Amino acid sequence: MSASNLDSLFNPQSIAMIGASATPGKWGNIILLNILKGNFQGKVYPVNPKADKILGLQCFTSVIDIPDKVDMALITTPAQYILPLIEECGAKKIPYLVVITSNFSEAGDAGVKLEAELVAKAAEYGIRIVGPNTMGVYSAQSQLHALMPMLMPLKGSVSMFSQSGNVGVQMMDYGQKEGVGFEKFVSSGNEGDLSSVDYMRYFAKDDETKVILGYVEGVESGRDFLAAVKQISRIKPIVMLKGGRTEVGARAAASHTGSLAGTRAVNRAAFRQAGILEVQGSLELIDCAKALANYPIPKGNRVGIVTRGGGWGVLTADSCEEAGLVVPPLPEDMIRHIDTLLPDYWNRGNPIDLVATVANDPMPEILGLLAEWDGVDAVIALGAGFRAFQFECSDEVAGPPELLKVMSSMKNFFQQVAEGRDSTLQLIADLVKKTGKPIISVSTGSQYSHKEIMESYKIVSFPTPERAVKVLKTMYEYHQIINTRDN
Amino acid sequence: MSASNLDSLFNPQSIAMIGASATPGKWGNIILLNILKGNFQGKVYPVNPKADKILGLQCFTSVIDIPDKVDMALITTPAQYILPLIEECGAKKIPYLVVITSNFSEAGDAGVKLEAELVAKAAEYGIRIVGPNTMGVYSAQSQLHALMPMLMPLKGSVSMFSQSGNVGVQMMDYGQKEGVGFEKFVSSGNEGDLSSVDYMRYFAKDDETKVILGYVEGVESGRDFLAAVKQISRIKPIVMLKGGRTEVGARAAASHTGSLAGTRAVNRAAFRQAGILEVQGSLELIDCAKALANYPIPKGNRVGIVTRGGGWGVLTADSCEEAGLVVPPLPEDMIRHIDTLLPDYWNRGNPIDLVATVANDPMPEILGLLAEWDGVDAVIALGAGFRAFQFECSDEVAGPPELLKVMSSMKNFFQQVAEGRDSTLQLIADLVKKTGKPIISVSTGSQYSHKEIMESYKIVSFPTPERAVKVLKTMYEYHQIINTRDN
Repeated sequence: MSASNLDSLFNPQSIAMIGASATPGKWGNIILLNILKGNFQGKVYPVNPKADKILGLQCFTSVIDIPDKVDMALITTPAQYILPLIEECGAKKIPYLVVITSNFSEAGDAGVKLEAELVAKAAEYGIRIVGPNTMGVYSAQSQLHALMPMLMPLKGSVSMFSQSGNVGVQMMDYGQKEGVGFEKFVSSGNEGDLSSVDYMRYFAKDDETKVILGYVEGVESGRDFLAAVKQISRIKPIVMLKGGRTEVGARAAASHTGSLAGTRAVNRAAFRQAGILEVQGSLELIDCAKALANYPIPKGNRVGIVTRGGGWGVLTADSCEEAGLVVPPLPEDMIRHIDTLLPDYWNRGNPIDLVATVANDPMPEILGLLAEWDGVDAVIALGAGFRAFQFECSDEVAGPPELLKVMSSMKNFFQQVAEGRDSTLQLIADLVKKTGKPIISVSTGSQYSHKEIMESYKIVSFPTPERAVKVLKTMYEYHQIINTRDN
Repeated sequence: MSASNLDSLFNPQSIAMIGASATPGKWGNIILLNILKGNFQGKVYPVNPKADKILGLQCFTSVIDIPDKVDMALITTPAQYILPLIEECGAKKIPYLVVITSNFSEAGDAGVKLEAELVAKAAEYGIRIVGPNTMGVYSAQSQLHALMPMLMPLKGSVSMFSQSGNVGVQMMDYGQKEGVGFEKFVSSGNEGDLSSVDYMRYFAKDDETKVILGYVEGVESGRDFLAAVKQISRIKPIVMLKGGRTEVGARAAASHTGSLAGTRAVNRAAFRQAGILEVQGSLELIDCAKALANYPIPKGNRVGIVTRGGGWGVLTADSCEEAGLVVPPLPEDMIRHIDTLLPDYWNRGNPIDLVATVANDPMPEILGLLAEWDGVDAVIALGAGFRAFQFECSDEVAGPPELLKVMSSMKNFFQQVAEGRDSTLQLIADLVKKTGKPIISVSTGSQYSHKEIMESYKIVSFPTPERAVKVLKTMYEYHQIINTRDN
């Protein structure tokens, strides 16, 4: 069955919560609370034959009694009691059922059998199942937080499917801290019915989604999965993290996503050939999403580097080369131009070392020259837009009035420097627009967090050069994917 | 010349600042200010023939006029005026001169010649030189911040030499954010005289130093360097980051550390054979320092993993295996014990998936079982000691009184959960002491920063499993180094 339009799942106008509970700590209570406190834009109908009101909402004995259509129902009822309720959902013509309940195929032979019965019965009525054993769904568009965890993700243009709800939650949590917003999320659970392929296809068509993320442990049909990716990856970037890459990891995966594990492993080469941008680290998934959602894709692998310190430039150049990116030498005319801006002992190379300076910052002009040079496709700015130094002082310091006076004026001076650096941040944002090239900022210390820099300036910035390089490597991979006629 | 005791350099009782300046923004002003505001415990004598007082301190025309012995002098005087001042330092019997001034061997042939003259003249008088082209020295022990940048590093037991002052500063900045304190730091500059080997030897003997960090671009004599490392690495861990690993990186290095670059590259295999713990990423240097300075060294490569979510455990197991660590299966008796603590569908494997629970947290007891099991040498606790969920709410939410009341009580409930998790942090600290095994905590969200967790509980914790794994890998490498009779 095809399910490319999952609109009423992700943007329902009305929801039923089957197994709603008045008892704090029960999932039927927590999920309902999450939906309400997330300020969901549609209607919510708790279903519980034993309660009159839950969280202030009128309760219903069965979905049948709800005096409204129901676009999507969530269910937390224990596994052994679910089947009869499917019939009621069918009678009510509910198109999507999110089965939070666990103890299905992830929990042994009896669970496998029960899951097959659940899916078969749902299919009889044309009901599509999310899960079972899912942590739920999220949609920024309709302010839907139908999730087990109490997380409120940042809103944005990244959508994710995750075969581990837990990993998905970690990613939304990273996103909150890094300034990466989510549009839609689904914990795909055991994928008894709806699968990663269905969610990817929907995200591909969803206007609100710019970047697709996936956490995958195994897929039922590798061929379908890769065929879908091949098509979608030409339209939107798909970044994935693969769990169960090793024997021990696969064994652990088998124990928590049930039927999926143990099926044919989709290996790395196949991932890449299909157009998946595979990352090796968990936070890298969010780093790549940040850049792909906010920056233009580079047109090649040539990187210009500008730095406030020599060693930092060396390490960044090393990382670029090791990642297959190229750090080209500067052309003569640019060297002559920069000769007029830097002390005569400047290094005349890429990375451009600005040589330690506090005032009269040469960064803006040189950054502009470098970004506009047609010899590079991307730029890494080390220390741009940040205070190079911080005014910090021992609490115990005492001294003559001259010293204290100077310290106070230094504080002001550094404040001004910091403000000057703010204008460099704005310049980076302008240069990204003007040149169509990604310019990534790197700094350990700043007056703003990297999240604030994203939110205020739409600039991608990281605390380490290695993270910037990994992201550019992935962006360049995506350039290759969308510029290969057929592979 | 041997210089294994650099005590009067790092812990001087009196300092002269030659080239001290009253002009804000000049290095002769900034460095003096940094020394004063850092609350240096010794005496400071500014030297400037044209000033009477600087920052409230009596100024001297020449070091000769200082009515006290001088243990160490810093100099910012332009390169071409330095040589005559060396004679005065010699007459004053100053043992160490920190030459901040640049424009020596890093700046072409004339600079190479001038540096040779500087070093030769200093040697005539028995003066040892730090630099030239150094950013200065730092010592927590004597509260000495004789540095160009205004940074105030956290105090701790990590000492570092860096062939790039800039990289050193970034590391101390990371340290501030990650809760990793520094005891001593030297920017070794061009290493015209004192070299990385001298600093390493001194740190090896320094009682305050537990871990030695190094940033290296090149060394004059690879043989001496590796011989020193081989000796010292058996006493204290030496973690290094190598700049100029690639051709482009080496070219960039050549342009900023002068004579050092272009000399024989010390390759990775030689590093490892000598006992250097080489890391590939900048922040990894600080991560390893954090663990090596605060935790026992594991006695093997077997890792126990406990997790609040399946996928997170899978990814951690994958990373361990990929890093050459082993994730062994659980023994029967432990499985039977945990059967009494977790729902019957628990995974019965390592990683131990605790299965999502909010109250009655099984983490403490299971963490204890795992850490005390003699089948593992180290433990990674995913989500231990942190709130698993956060109480967050849309600002716009409105609703009936029942909802608002429940939301308020949920907030209290989660507060209590968070406090319970605090006791788990204390448990981890106790288990590390009791078992002698490193237990690393991983969490994306927490009520404390990872820095606070280090400072309050002395627990090593990271936001990603990959960082925990890399650190354990390096710790295991160190175990191998100290347990190899001769290699």
